[in-house]
Amino acid sequence: MSAGPPLPVAEVRRVVRAALAPFRDVPVLVACSGGADSLALAAAVLTLRDGVHAAVVDHGLQDGSTERAVETVAVLERMGATAAVHRVEVTGPGGTEAAARTARYGALRAARPHPGSPVLLGHTLDDQAETVLLGLGRGSGARSLSGMRTWDDPWLRPLLDIRRATTRAACVAQDLPIWDDPHNADPRFTRVRLRHEVLPLLEDVLAGGVAGALARTAAQLREDDEALTAVADSLLATAADEHGLAHDALATHPVAVRRRVLRAWLHASGVTGLTAEHLHGVDALAVRGPDRTGTALPGGLDVVRARGRLVLRPGNWPGTR
Amino acid sequence: MSAGPPLPVAEVRRVVRAALAPFRDVPVLVACSGGADSLALAAAVLTLRDGVHAAVVDHGLQDGSTERAVETVAVLERMGATAAVHRVEVTGPGGTEAAARTARYGALRAARPHPGSPVLLGHTLDDQAETVLLGLGRGSGARSLSGMRTWDDPWLRPLLDIRRATTRAACVAQDLPIWDDPHNADPRFTRVRLRHEVLPLLEDVLAGGVAGALARTAAQLREDDEALTAVADSLLATAADEHGLAHDALATHPVAVRRRVLRAWLHASGVTGLTAEHLHGVDALAVRGPDRTGTALPGGLDVVRARGRLVLRPGNWPGTR
Repeated sequence: MSAGPPLPVAEVRRVVRAALAPFRDVPVLVACSGGADSLALAAAVLTLRDGVHAAVVDHGLQDGSTERAVETVAVLERMGATAAVHRVEVTGPGGTEAAARTARYGALRAARPHPGSPVLLGHTLDDQAETVLLGLGRGSGARSLSGMRTWDDPWLRPLLDIRRATTRAACVAQDLPIWDDPHNADPRFTRVRLRHEVLPLLEDVLAGGVAGALARTAAQLREDDEALTAVADSLLATAADEHGLAHDALATHPVAVRRRVLRAWLHASGVTGLTAEHLHGVDALAVRGPDRTGTALPGGLDVVRARGRLVLRPGNWPGTR
Repeated sequence: MSAGPPLPVAEVRRVVRAALAPFRDVPVLVACSGGADSLALAAAVLTLRDGVHAAVVDHGLQDGSTERAVETVAVLERMGATAAVHRVEVTGPGGTEAAARTARYGALRAARPHPGSPVLLGHTLDDQAETVLLGLGRGSGARSLSGMRTWDDPWLRPLLDIRRATTRAACVAQDLPIWDDPHNADPRFTRVRLRHEVLPLLEDVLAGGVAGALARTAAQLREDDEALTAVADSLLATAADEHGLAHDALATHPVAVRRRVLRAWLHASGVTGLTAEHLHGVDALAVRGPDRTGTALPGGLDVVRARGRLVLRPGNWPGTR
């Protein structure tokens, strides 16, 4: 009788097998940085599939990043993958982290061997917990706290229920050469401080289990948001036309649905930078009605009531006040 | 022309006036510990109302607590309130904090001058933020993160949008003698560590605004939970009878609704100690059906499918497997 693989290896394989089940007939792409999470992921995929492609993104942000990427490609090829380095230019708005992410996701999308290929990412339960904490700082409700999805076409994240300690143990058990990105210890990155300072303190103060609790919370809030967004989307489809949004159609719905309808309508109308206060103002206009004269929005726009509809207009338009 | 009251005093009065508006014809009770929050609250109520009652709860947990309570009553009487000390016995399950809370809320409820009187509590935006962080450690979704309500009969919390710094400034501006409870600096209390360690660290790491973001998140999650709970309650009313819960009625609803129906049904059936995993198992039984033989719940109970219904039975009952 065989002892089977070591426990962490078996645990990673189990979740990867389950995640890959709906993708039997397409080649898959694994994104791999050389770190423990994506290396354990790649190893599991390679025991379960033939013809696995792997992509290593070189962001060009650290000295030696290209050599580093080439070494990881060699590791992946030795493991049996068809692997390549994808060099990206990190430029654009929103800081280095956001720009690197945009460039990386673009390169990975383009590197898919088939338009239907899932791109497997190594995010773990610990990453999910950090994402929820990042969302707390935004304060925009379920959406900002609902974290990452296991399947978000084309992104597939089989490890979201697995602890980072497990992926590391799986790599050690399989003698895989883990690369520890020095960025992961650099306190200039918000995520690094959440990982090394905030989460350990929360674990201590709340007596443990916080990462798992954050991940469970994220999963439930995502389900809540999806249910309410589905109601809002179907309501929007019937209540909005080219003249505006019929406010009577909203009135019988709870504020959780109205807020989502109004946000979707305003987004579709090109309004960006909406805060909770803006939506609160537009909602008051929708349900309370004629005593209100209009609500100012970002971009110099106003929402006003006209002939049974909410209508978006340039602010301070003569005759709207 | 009068300069009007100092800004923090005016801010507290403004929110208290708005919160009291629906309670014009009943006498109100203010709960006051002698701390800055409830003292600023009492002062605002006393400028807006006649015949204000105030209650000071003596938990008997600290040396000199009775003298302390008597002094606070004297302060409140000088301010114009009808005030009294209410001594409670702190006993029972769940730790000192929980037992003190239960005893305090019981005494305050009993101290209402009229059955329709609201009991005003001094919880601030900072308390709300701490409550949300406490809920994070529980990991049970929107419900555990949705914090305290402004109105939760008979509890009225007018200060939930006001910072603790504002209530303190309001007391200082009105020369009110603030009592600083030594428990509020005792790191044996989870809430104290959230206040003095976790929140300041989060403010630093996430670059500010965390308390406000947590409070906004709580408000939106509460609205989401109320909307979904309303759908679930009406579904439960039609789908449940004395024989069980009709599972076909659930199948077309999203998991966010099904989970709430199942939780409410199981609670009403006397099942306690449910986890997310239990609900997940029962939900799989409801929607996936006949391939499942039953789901074990706390208290030695099983849920099984029988004649179109989910039915609760003692576990391992002959014939149910």
